[in-house]
Amino acid sequence: MKGASTLDKPYLRELSNPKMEKPIFIQGLPGFGNVGRIAAHLLIRHYGAKPFAELYSPTFPDYVSVNSKGTCRLPRYEFFHSKLDDMDFVVMSGETQPSFDDVLAHYDVCGEIVNYVEKLGCQFVVTIGGVPITEEKAQVYVAATSSRLATDFMEKGASIYSRGKIVGGTGLTLALAKERGLEGVCLLGATTGFKADKDAGTLAFKFLMKALGKEIKEGLPERL
Amino acid sequence: MKGASTLDKPYLRELSNPKMEKPIFIQGLPGFGNVGRIAAHLLIRHYGAKPFAELYSPTFPDYVSVNSKGTCRLPRYEFFHSKLDDMDFVVMSGETQPSFDDVLAHYDVCGEIVNYVEKLGCQFVVTIGGVPITEEKAQVYVAATSSRLATDFMEKGASIYSRGKIVGGTGLTLALAKERGLEGVCLLGATTGFKADKDAGTLAFKFLMKALGKEIKEGLPERL
Amino acid sequence: MKGASTLDKPYLRELSNPKMEKPIFIQGLPGFGNVGRIAAHLLIRHYGAKPFAELYSPTFPDYVSVNSKGTCRLPRYEFFHSKLDDMDFVVMSGETQPSFDDVLAHYDVCGEIVNYVEKLGCQFVVTIGGVPITEEKAQVYVAATSSRLATDFMEKGASIYSRGKIVGGTGLTLALAKERGLEGVCLLGATTGFKADKDAGTLAFKFLMKALGKEIKEGLPERL
Amino acid sequence: MKGASTLDKPYLRELSNPKMEKPIFIQGLPGFGNVGRIAAHLLIRHYGAKPFAELYSPTFPDYVSVNSKGTCRLPRYEFFHSKLDDMDFVVMSGETQPSFDDVLAHYDVCGEIVNYVEKLGCQFVVTIGGVPITEEKAQVYVAATSSRLATDFMEKGASIYSRGKIVGGTGLTLALAKERGLEGVCLLGATTGFKADKDAGTLAFKFLMKALGKEIKEGLPERL
Repeated sequence: MKGASTLDKPYLRELSNPKMEKPIFIQGLPGFGNVGRIAAHLLIRHYGAKPFAELYSPTFPDYVSVNSKGTCRLPRYEFFHSKLDDMDFVVMSGETQPSFDDVLAHYDVCGEIVNYVEKLGCQFVVTIGGVPITEEKAQVYVAATSSRLATDFMEKGASIYSRGKIVGGTGLTLALAKERGLEGVCLLGATTGFKADKDAGTLAFKFLMKALGKEIKEGLPERL
Repeated sequence: MKGASTLDKPYLRELSNPKMEKPIFIQGLPGFGNVGRIAAHLLIRHYGAKPFAELYSPTFPDYVSVNSKGTCRLPRYEFFHSKLDDMDFVVMSGETQPSFDDVLAHYDVCGEIVNYVEKLGCQFVVTIGGVPITEEKAQVYVAATSSRLATDFMEKGASIYSRGKIVGGTGLTLALAKERGLEGVCLLGATTGFKADKDAGTLAFKFLMKALGKEIKEGLPERL
Repeated sequence: MKGASTLDKPYLRELSNPKMEKPIFIQGLPGFGNVGRIAAHLLIRHYGAKPFAELYSPTFPDYVSVNSKGTCRLPRYEFFHSKLDDMDFVVMSGETQPSFDDVLAHYDVCGEIVNYVEKLGCQFVVTIGGVPITEEKAQVYVAATSSRLATDFMEKGASIYSRGKIVGGTGLTLALAKERGLEGVCLLGATTGFKADKDAGTLAFKFLMKALGKEIKEGLPERL
Repeated sequence: MKGASTLDKPYLRELSNPKMEKPIFIQGLPGFGNVGRIAAHLLIRHYGAKPFAELYSPTFPDYVSVNSKGTCRLPRYEFFHSKLDDMDFVVMSGETQPSFDDVLAHYDVCGEIVNYVEKLGCQFVVTIGGVPITEEKAQVYVAATSSRLATDFMEKGASIYSRGKIVGGTGLTLALAKERGLEGVCLLGATTGFKADKDAGTLAFKFLMKALGKEIKEGLPERL
């Protein structure tokens, strides 16, 4: 933000410029059962992804975060990079989303995310979230930028999402990416959503890596 | 949206450029009894109108729509074109409106609509909506950009709308069009409004086509 | 609005350019007991003031008004001009205010009003409103851009307003005018505020004209 | 504001240009127990600080303030300057904050504050607020732009703040300052918060001056 006079719109700060080629972008934000955020953090920890960029926005809640050492900072989204074999991943997560009813803010922030991943050369976008269900059931749902892609992921074990709407950043990032000509899928882990749902998050994570051809070995990190 | 960096205001995307001359513009959005949307869809289906443009807005609700095949997209308004004898029609409908209390959004979106139809050469605007009544009664009300026009439509069977206010996009598009020097009417189908009111929508549709000199033959499509 | 592409901020339309010299500006908007609006309309009718400009704003409620002949138009504020002996008056009234909690909108609209009256050469601003009281009492309160002015009006019969705050456009137009170096007063008619309070509006009107040296003769128009 | 056409964003007006060198900036706004505002006013009165600048914002509440003499003015923040030995202080306080849920407004106003103090040459920022506790206890908490600074202030008697979040302008000004490369601390006086907490405000004030090497002598002004 140095040099910027005021933080009046989403602001992207790059910490480093890791080399990557046509990375897959994976977004996991807080929401129902925290499924998206848990899955993203599993990816980051499991593959040792390194932070390289941060996104700030004046539409994030107006609190600051303080860590255990008393250091404060603005709420933010973080972008992490990891290389698996020959595949580059960019994982984004964060601790917050704009207020539920601030529609314009969601368009603003998700638009900035798509701008950035497009600039990174990304051509495939994965958003992960939760979908509330009344009975517990281990299931991953999929919606996609094309029916062909939705069918692909169905054949890999997901169910087609057919409830009509996906609310918030999980749907919006994908739909805005589609408008730019990118492809991608939204994976929704079924969750009763009453608390952070580690199982649903783990299932979404495993499903994604399997779908991308990266079978996950047992022994995930204990703490999320 | 290709090329646009962020979707931070209403955005118009043209799919094709159908030839048209001084088209009549007809807007039917969701609302009381869904009268406007039903009437617009009857027009589109009855006359085989073809989509040629889409309007997106960051003030539309921040969900994405997913169809039965799992394909997602942003909420939008669609413009359809049809030619009846020598008369060009542009019909616009959509699945949503900006939030009820986001006043600025309504001005923004309706202003963009008027900009566009003016650019298309339109000089006459029809907006269709519902007006809540307590007793069921088949009736179409009219308000217009001039008292002469209101009287014209009254002589064709509508009642002058005299309750003082028309809320939302149905009134605003017409009033903004008036400010640009366009003429037009607002047709309000009486509805108890508790559910989608096919009868009120059909009545508004038939009344409009009759008023424009296009008697509707029996045998409307069953499904709306 | 012809020529303006979208109504995305307050918009001033001049209908004519009446000659005037250092006019006194008087604003009376709806509010507690409608005192301001009633006083403004008394001024307009009593002195045959003529409309010469209109102010539109996308932050006004998103309804349109329809008159008894079925003609619709956007909500607006209207400016009227009248000449009394050698004194020019500009009176502004309207049917609405921006939403109570849309703070930015009030600054926007009142700022535009002050811009315009400054351009008209106005150096003295009067805003009229109501102030809620629990017991009925005929009283006009005054706040001003300087303590000297407040004392002047106190000596003419008003009470100094000392409750600390004036909410909405009635206070804001005056305070913004003060920031531009204009002088003026805010007159607040005491009202129980449950309904349109003609007595309080009439008292504020009479007090103002007396304070300005224009004794009001009996026989005000019956209908407001 | 003379010259500015409309007050559509935060606006800074300088009344004078006191000479100062690398001043320490101290912000105390209303909030829990009014701790911040009370501490700031103690600073201003105790050291005879003089006002030299004012900040206005269209996101402040849309009321105007009227003093006991009937003079009205816009809500504002005021900047005061004082010199203690060889140390320059800029103290800012005000009577209000933007609406709790207007997130963008907080970023806007705090960003403008940081802009201005940076321009004044300030390199160290102190924000003072209250933190609600359930049992009365005299305690000052600290969060800082670095763990080193937090530890420094802990050694001077404060407790490290470890509850995770600081809400509103008190946290935001500091975190935005940090983004510009400034250093600073946030001091939070423990308060039950039910009324203006003079004790908590005084404690925060005394702690700050002691930490800065300025022991406060007894005999504070009685009235705040």
